[in-house]
Amino acid sequence: MLEKLDMTARLSKGKYSKTMDTLGQKLGEMQRKARDAKRPVIIVFEGWRGARRGTIINTMMQQMDARGFKVHSVIKISDEERKMPFFTYFWQNLPAKGNIAVYHRSWYYLKNESDIHFMAEKGKWLETSFEHINNFEKELTDDNYILIKFFLHVSEKSQQENLTQNYRTLGKAWREISPAYDESSNYKMFLDRYEKMLEATDTVNAPWHLIAADDLYNAQVEVFSSIVDVIDKALQEKPTAEVPIRSVTAYDVLSRVDLTKGISKADYKEKLIKYQERLRLLQIEMFQAGYTTIIGFEGWDAGGKGGAIRRLTAALDPLGFAVNPVASPNVVEREFHYLWRFWINLPKRGTIAIFDRTWYGRVMVERLEGFATAAEWQRAYDEIKDMEAQWSESGISIAKFWLHIDKDEQYKRFKERENNPVKNWKITDEDWRNREKWDAYEGAVNEMLVRTDTSYAPWTVVEANNKYYARLKVLKTVINMFEKKLDKKTDKKTDKKTDKKIDKK
Amino acid sequence: MLEKLDMTARLSKGKYSKTMDTLGQKLGEMQRKARDAKRPVIIVFEGWRGARRGTIINTMMQQMDARGFKVHSVIKISDEERKMPFFTYFWQNLPAKGNIAVYHRSWYYLKNESDIHFMAEKGKWLETSFEHINNFEKELTDDNYILIKFFLHVSEKSQQENLTQNYRTLGKAWREISPAYDESSNYKMFLDRYEKMLEATDTVNAPWHLIAADDLYNAQVEVFSSIVDVIDKALQEKPTAEVPIRSVTAYDVLSRVDLTKGISKADYKEKLIKYQERLRLLQIEMFQAGYTTIIGFEGWDAGGKGGAIRRLTAALDPLGFAVNPVASPNVVEREFHYLWRFWINLPKRGTIAIFDRTWYGRVMVERLEGFATAAEWQRAYDEIKDMEAQWSESGISIAKFWLHIDKDEQYKRFKERENNPVKNWKITDEDWRNREKWDAYEGAVNEMLVRTDTSYAPWTVVEANNKYYARLKVLKTVINMFEKKLDKKTDKKTDKKTDKKIDKK
Repeated sequence: MLEKLDMTARLSKGKYSKTMDTLGQKLGEMQRKARDAKRPVIIVFEGWRGARRGTIINTMMQQMDARGFKVHSVIKISDEERKMPFFTYFWQNLPAKGNIAVYHRSWYYLKNESDIHFMAEKGKWLETSFEHINNFEKELTDDNYILIKFFLHVSEKSQQENLTQNYRTLGKAWREISPAYDESSNYKMFLDRYEKMLEATDTVNAPWHLIAADDLYNAQVEVFSSIVDVIDKALQEKPTAEVPIRSVTAYDVLSRVDLTKGISKADYKEKLIKYQERLRLLQIEMFQAGYTTIIGFEGWDAGGKGGAIRRLTAALDPLGFAVNPVASPNVVEREFHYLWRFWINLPKRGTIAIFDRTWYGRVMVERLEGFATAAEWQRAYDEIKDMEAQWSESGISIAKFWLHIDKDEQYKRFKERENNPVKNWKITDEDWRNREKWDAYEGAVNEMLVRTDTSYAPWTVVEANNKYYARLKVLKTVINMFEKKLDKKTDKKTDKKTDKKIDKK
Repeated sequence: MLEKLDMTARLSKGKYSKTMDTLGQKLGEMQRKARDAKRPVIIVFEGWRGARRGTIINTMMQQMDARGFKVHSVIKISDEERKMPFFTYFWQNLPAKGNIAVYHRSWYYLKNESDIHFMAEKGKWLETSFEHINNFEKELTDDNYILIKFFLHVSEKSQQENLTQNYRTLGKAWREISPAYDESSNYKMFLDRYEKMLEATDTVNAPWHLIAADDLYNAQVEVFSSIVDVIDKALQEKPTAEVPIRSVTAYDVLSRVDLTKGISKADYKEKLIKYQERLRLLQIEMFQAGYTTIIGFEGWDAGGKGGAIRRLTAALDPLGFAVNPVASPNVVEREFHYLWRFWINLPKRGTIAIFDRTWYGRVMVERLEGFATAAEWQRAYDEIKDMEAQWSESGISIAKFWLHIDKDEQYKRFKERENNPVKNWKITDEDWRNREKWDAYEGAVNEMLVRTDTSYAPWTVVEANNKYYARLKVLKTVINMFEKKLDKKTDKKTDKKTDKKIDKK
């Protein structure tokens, strides 16, 4: 793609100054308009070293209102951050609605550097694929983010000149460049890498703007005009027509669940202690190995999520886990992409993040209550799978539980709560209202359980009419996951006995 | 203090279970009440290794609603975080109004560890003083935070037993303990340290709750009862009587400012380029040396803050600075202490954070418009100085500018803005309203400039009727600060010429 660029473009200083006066004002105007329209904007600056990205970004900053405008630099990402799922940094720094984020090098640079690094020191930094990049960008543009990607192209000759000039003025560079990343002595090799990158990621929703940057004036004007143009067009877009709900095969998982499974209180107590002891030791081993875990809980209201989570965490050291309750998004969360609030709560290395309700709200309550459009919840299956895949690729273990009870059991539990003065704050009119939509929810849950059940993030449906049975099954599933991850032989003796007892009931 | 504790206290399992049933419920109730009253709660668990803090915290977690409840562990603080101003981590993790934060070891542990560490590896981690600790806690309790501090005390014998037991069950500890921090083989030395710490920080507003923890049941009941008791009492407190405004000496700084100072456009242009070039090189040196900077801008409306900031940042590489505009606190910011939003925007190592308006809003607009009570703004001078002192002690350089113009000049600029179609969005009715209170503001500004002018964070009053002069003075002040920090000989020749020209006008 780069070879087709006209690198001879030049602009006189006079023409440049005149054009920039107008463009600068328009840029400020676009910022205000995007803010009023509550559209978030992400501008990516990629390209060669020595293409004077910094100068262009700085000129741009001079025109912008600093409120709601932020420049991010990937170069400052620490080694610790490099071990997190690849897009963590970018999710955590997503601009809120109406704000502008500028990336002074972005996920592209990070991928490039990681790829090169990977050859030398296998596994030290995390890689990603062009597929994940395209998915990430699609998720943003689908959610009304205005995404503008620039690649600043310079010829080998100009690059040499600019870099020499830099060294002469500055004495030395901002940071040492290791030979492996030295574009200037490997121009052809990097040209090839960049070509492949541009090819693979030049998409309809997030096309590249290739900029001939041998002439700084020309580059600056092209960049500014493109930004003004793209934002202007984006703000004039008509809302797209409603996406129809595609025909859905009626999946059926829940009706086949054997809700008669149960276990006696005495057996439960005995096993609970055993499981919790085992879990306690496994948590420490997982921590010391640096293995991170995410456990998500979904289930019917009064399905016993809280109780199961408490039995799980009772076995754990508070140093190494956090429980994240998920309710309807709050004022701040509503300013971001719906997956943002999960990315910002990723567990630290070696620890366990427990989510009481999860990102699956999108395909259940948001779908059924109309908080998400048909287009939004229908594409959510893919978005969620891509997120979980990325987590998994970074080494995180994932367990997802659906705590299943039947309608009669739920009625019994609601009534119990209402009549118990210590617990009646837990039951609200909303719970009763949701209950009326049981069948619709059942359909949505069935679809979710089938479509998002993957090898890297499988669903465990828990037979939960009997609370004892349910809690033990949750504990056992987590124990098995940890042991598998630690590549341990399962303690066969205890297991067989227990499993038999659990399965028999 | 610890010697006076009755370490023989024991509780039978039966009595313990019975008491805990009631206490657990009360604890949950207190959480809901604090949430309804929008009172944030911070619970600190300090004490000996082997005092079973983890078990107690975990038992507590079982009783609490995970929404708005979070456990933090200082042990996970990274070496990078250790280089930030000491309280950064704690400010950044402050609970919002109505939430509860539990600290599994806190600033006390961090100080202790840093002190010990400091003896071995001078300067690698940041220290703090008991004075800063007391100030920090006072700021919280003054702002209606409920702060509960526990020290779990165990005898040497119990400690040995508990630690041996831990190692037997767990095989190894969560993390390696270096000999310097090994309490169990230096019990007497640590006892002495802890005594001094408790003495120095047992204050009226944040007293220690010393817990005899040889018996776990006893400790658990004491901890739970104390929490219930403290929160209950705090929620019943009557609002204190209005604090009177203490008599203020009329300070006078502004009237002595020579607003006739100026410089011609031609001279300005020549100097601007020179200064910007020098600044560009200094920024890189500051970055490479890892020296961090905070620059705050205050001044009259239309005083030229924006223009001065733009001339400053035009010289800088966007990699190494961020501009933080400060307006009235937003929905999220209002949920926290008023200084919180500045702590969460501290610059990364080696970079520059520019604040367009600052934390001084408390003693200007908030004071005069009644957004802060007399008690609040009067204590703010000390709070702010303590914050700046801490920043400075961590190695951050601080510059604060007041851009001063007179009333006529402001009128002229307001009118210019109104008549300029590109700029008229910048002027609002509020600007005109503020102008009417000029005299009141002048009094507040005079007091602020005197009382918060310190060796580590001095105010520079900028004569700003002439924009050119003002911008150059800002640049020059920053250049001087950088050169001093880098211990450079100032470039005398350029300086003298320029200073003379600037001063002459």
